[in-house]
Amino acid sequence: MVLFLIGLGLGDAQDITVKGLAAVKRCSRVYLEVYTSILTEGKEKLEEFYGKELILADRDLVEQGAEEILRDADTTDVGFLVVGDPFGATTHSDLVLRAVHAGIPYRVIHNASIMNAIGCCGLQLYNFGETVSFVFWTETWKPESYFDKICKNRVMGLHTLCLLDIKVKEQSIENMMRGRKIFEPPRFMTVAQAVEQLLQIIQRRREEGEELGMTEDTVCVGVARLGSDDQVIRAAPLRELASCDLGEPLHSLVVTGRLHPLELDMLKVNAQQGALDGVKMADSSTFIS
Amino acid sequence: MVLFLIGLGLGDAQDITVKGLAAVKRCSRVYLEVYTSILTEGKEKLEEFYGKELILADRDLVEQGAEEILRDADTTDVGFLVVGDPFGATTHSDLVLRAVHAGIPYRVIHNASIMNAIGCCGLQLYNFGETVSFVFWTETWKPESYFDKICKNRVMGLHTLCLLDIKVKEQSIENMMRGRKIFEPPRFMTVAQAVEQLLQIIQRRREEGEELGMTEDTVCVGVARLGSDDQVIRAAPLRELASCDLGEPLHSLVVTGRLHPLELDMLKVNAQQGALDGVKMADSSTFIS
Repeated sequence: MVLFLIGLGLGDAQDITVKGLAAVKRCSRVYLEVYTSILTEGKEKLEEFYGKELILADRDLVEQGAEEILRDADTTDVGFLVVGDPFGATTHSDLVLRAVHAGIPYRVIHNASIMNAIGCCGLQLYNFGETVSFVFWTETWKPESYFDKICKNRVMGLHTLCLLDIKVKEQSIENMMRGRKIFEPPRFMTVAQAVEQLLQIIQRRREEGEELGMTEDTVCVGVARLGSDDQVIRAAPLRELASCDLGEPLHSLVVTGRLHPLELDMLKVNAQQGALDGVKMADSSTFIS
Repeated sequence: MVLFLIGLGLGDAQDITVKGLAAVKRCSRVYLEVYTSILTEGKEKLEEFYGKELILADRDLVEQGAEEILRDADTTDVGFLVVGDPFGATTHSDLVLRAVHAGIPYRVIHNASIMNAIGCCGLQLYNFGETVSFVFWTETWKPESYFDKICKNRVMGLHTLCLLDIKVKEQSIENMMRGRKIFEPPRFMTVAQAVEQLLQIIQRRREEGEELGMTEDTVCVGVARLGSDDQVIRAAPLRELASCDLGEPLHSLVVTGRLHPLELDMLKVNAQQGALDGVKMADSSTFIS
């Protein structure tokens, strides 16, 4: 039989494709991957809409329990549901390879992901460079490598999609050392938190006399709950996004490169729709900073 | 009321989302955009599955007849269907802006597009640089700018998604000059044709002594009809794709950058599934060329 990797798209239960829903219904066992992204609706709502019981698949299960997921997949259909498209995260390549090596055929049912749906903010997908990931900084670990990638993209005039950190089922160091399976509450990085990191990096590098590939005036776009009924898209110079509250997760950020006039027109539309809350749109000449 | 921009995904009629299908059903007029991409099924199949009559929207209608598309959209729902995701092509931003300026609310229903579904070949989306477009060369116009972009991506270790030209409703110069509305048969660039362009550029530049950012040995991935039941994914050194026949449109090509071991493993799987037809997979060391 078949391992189905089914993209759920963004938003809610109804963003699954007709083909994907038909596949879910024929599977005897259906897993829901819950650590690389989330929808605006939880497990129960999805179960109700799909008419199927879902088994939550956290990172441990996918990375270490793949044989459990693939159990009997040679005699029955197994579904593996992923928010967005199934091939956003590396770990799913790993699951596919395990299936292939076990002689289990697999089939991918695609859907929208942040990687292409971000186009709705008005920035052309063709004009994006390499995507970067932001992680939550700790006291002792404040990586900045994504900043250099953003600046490289900007030198070429390209926009950068910034994926913001998700921490689910994380253990405190104390609990981990004591082997206690107690988990911290899930954390989802907000646009404001991501902007705060960027501002700190800019300030530090400026103090050290470095040439800056982006500044507080660089136009950025914060998006929240893309694809859902209450999505928010907010375009503004970086500094003005520091205090924004875009609400519930998930959030993403775009740092713009060179803006085409049509892109700028669309950003302005989205800024208006997004209830600017005091964020002042600069005129177009300062936009290209 | 609302202008719905609805992504159809890749593949066939059933790749629409449940939310998208519900929106189609409530629209009083539904347009099908037919010049930036195609599905494996035509208008009649889609009409049957959606239970709606579709109005074909070519480039002329979308770019010059936007007021016709938006007619009555303030009192009734109008649907605009786009293969893939609605925000792949610039012209649809234009339609959205016209709606906004006419005071018509719009809503986007996302879906998979080649920009994210390409991840299923096994290459990580995070490792793609700027996307490029190939156009059909003519006797007098042989643009090469995409080649420089591919090489720039490769310097940074990044893969490049190459979108291949689509010509629908094109007029011959003679017919255009005589004002005759006679159109040439549609043309869709194949992977083999795209590879032939690359090989010609490489050869010419080598003869002129230029340093080459990619060669005939660079690993490329040809894909055809991605997301459909008979999709083909074929990974091989560039030169071996020159003679490949991946069948019906649409085709796309990826030129790889630096390959991660997991990416290489996935490419090998896809190469095997893709019925290699004499294309010999090089061993992994020559893959990273």
